[in-house]
Amino acid sequence: MTISDLGEFGLIEAIAAALPRSDATIVGIGDDAAVLAAPDARVVATTDLLVEGRHFRRDWSGPADIGVKAAAQNLADVAAMGAIPVALLVGFAAPGTLAVAWARDLVAGLAAECARAGATVAGGDVSSADAILLAITALGDLAGRDPVTRSGARPGDVLAYAGVLGRSAAGQALLEAGLAGPDVLIAAHRRPQPPYPAGPEAAALGATAMIDVSDGLLADLGHLARASGVQVDIDPTAFPGDAALAAAATALGRAGPLDWVLTGGEDHALAATFPPGGALPPDWTVIGQVRAGQGVLVNGSPVPGRAGWNHFSG
Amino acid sequence: MTISDLGEFGLIEAIAAALPRSDATIVGIGDDAAVLAAPDARVVATTDLLVEGRHFRRDWSGPADIGVKAAAQNLADVAAMGAIPVALLVGFAAPGTLAVAWARDLVAGLAAECARAGATVAGGDVSSADAILLAITALGDLAGRDPVTRSGARPGDVLAYAGVLGRSAAGQALLEAGLAGPDVLIAAHRRPQPPYPAGPEAAALGATAMIDVSDGLLADLGHLARASGVQVDIDPTAFPGDAALAAAATALGRAGPLDWVLTGGEDHALAATFPPGGALPPDWTVIGQVRAGQGVLVNGSPVPGRAGWNHFSG
Repeated sequence: MTISDLGEFGLIEAIAAALPRSDATIVGIGDDAAVLAAPDARVVATTDLLVEGRHFRRDWSGPADIGVKAAAQNLADVAAMGAIPVALLVGFAAPGTLAVAWARDLVAGLAAECARAGATVAGGDVSSADAILLAITALGDLAGRDPVTRSGARPGDVLAYAGVLGRSAAGQALLEAGLAGPDVLIAAHRRPQPPYPAGPEAAALGATAMIDVSDGLLADLGHLARASGVQVDIDPTAFPGDAALAAAATALGRAGPLDWVLTGGEDHALAATFPPGGALPPDWTVIGQVRAGQGVLVNGSPVPGRAGWNHFSG
Repeated sequence: MTISDLGEFGLIEAIAAALPRSDATIVGIGDDAAVLAAPDARVVATTDLLVEGRHFRRDWSGPADIGVKAAAQNLADVAAMGAIPVALLVGFAAPGTLAVAWARDLVAGLAAECARAGATVAGGDVSSADAILLAITALGDLAGRDPVTRSGARPGDVLAYAGVLGRSAAGQALLEAGLAGPDVLIAAHRRPQPPYPAGPEAAALGATAMIDVSDGLLADLGHLARASGVQVDIDPTAFPGDAALAAAATALGRAGPLDWVLTGGEDHALAATFPPGGALPPDWTVIGQVRAGQGVLVNGSPVPGRAGWNHFSG
């Protein structure tokens, strides 16, 4: 059965029936708009587009994977403000010939990642289009803490990250080379797993700036450094060893995994700066320093070449 | 200059520079997410997709018109819950060959309609895609009032609407026939003007149910009747005369404008039910009754034929 057979309202009903509802949902799917609790009297809100052929490929990722990835990248943006993810709104456009089962599996992926983050799908829209497109909006709760922006880093702060770095890029490189493993890297490309609780945790620890690593560590720290008016210096020896990354580098004849760690996007790790002197919990790894100046250095030197992804030049 | 020349970040900067900021915006464009005031401790949230060739045509509507229309249909959904529009998030996908001027004019249209509604653009995302696509999320504030859902209408309530009905459909019919007027109908198709303040006003007046008329009055009242478990009976003589609609009907050889009024979508009027006996302010026109039963009647009889728009069968 195709989504055209089911029709717009049938598709919405099928999607709504498959989704859990949360206590934060005052009015859910099926009205003009959703109504969600915002007990903090502020709401964090972010939106992202995922376009078939540009952000995902149906021959590399199944619908549940694509759902997980779409949810993850938006929920990570909420966490990167120091907030707790609450809800997604999902805009879904697809050709009428798409199988209903594909749409259901996509929604299952969205719902699964929402559940991992403590959020739910609270509303959305469906439309026909020539290519599949997802437009995800994520909402979050600051729970009384100040938002952690990109602009608060100060000279003397330490730089740390939570989550994984480089695994999605390595997984993509393996897929491009026609290799099927290491499995953990293919999975990391298909289903990034952002460290959601680390976001509010960083806010509670007094993080001065934070960013979701979606375009690559160098590129995203470049945004943070520019917004804060500081220089960030990364110690490349500070990253913990990653045997899967090392194996992939060997399999693909690369010198090592550092390029993936520094420039690979889509893992949705969180990078944050913290005041000096405090101890950080184990999910945060210190990887550098904030100094007066500008730009991002590695081991004290600028990095030539590709720093990240630009959606109109890629 | 094309948006590909400007690049993703250049485009975002150009857009952000052109947008006003509101007091409700705690963190605006340029961070991982926006942070908005939600003083009511609840937030109204809705999202809609607009796909080129399906929801708009570049040969019929200029970019500013398309921006107005995209903003209007989402802001109207917020008003239809009885809430005050606060902010939009805008996802914008387009071919890299699109002129920057087109994107700027689109954003100007979005901003103009936001200003009319008392809202601002607080964030968004841009991506490349083969066709232009807009994914708009609107957020709103209930200001202490209960949300007005589709499901609260009770037998004995009166049915009323605010705004205009049929003008967008008549404007579209004129464009399809290659006619350039009446101007007011072409303008209504290009730039629907929802009656935003009527939404919170209806909530304050004790409206029992409300819906945004986006698919056509019969279709949308069908949603309201089904959600409420009631029957709605429209008095077709209750609609005020509309000289422009009558002129268009004559120009196109139609019996009269009633079909546009009953089935035309995209005007984003608000339809609401109110407890009997109360006087309504002049922006609300009583057009029928709520009874026990089901479905939507016109003058006591069911209406055969097309009742509205389904996005996968259109």
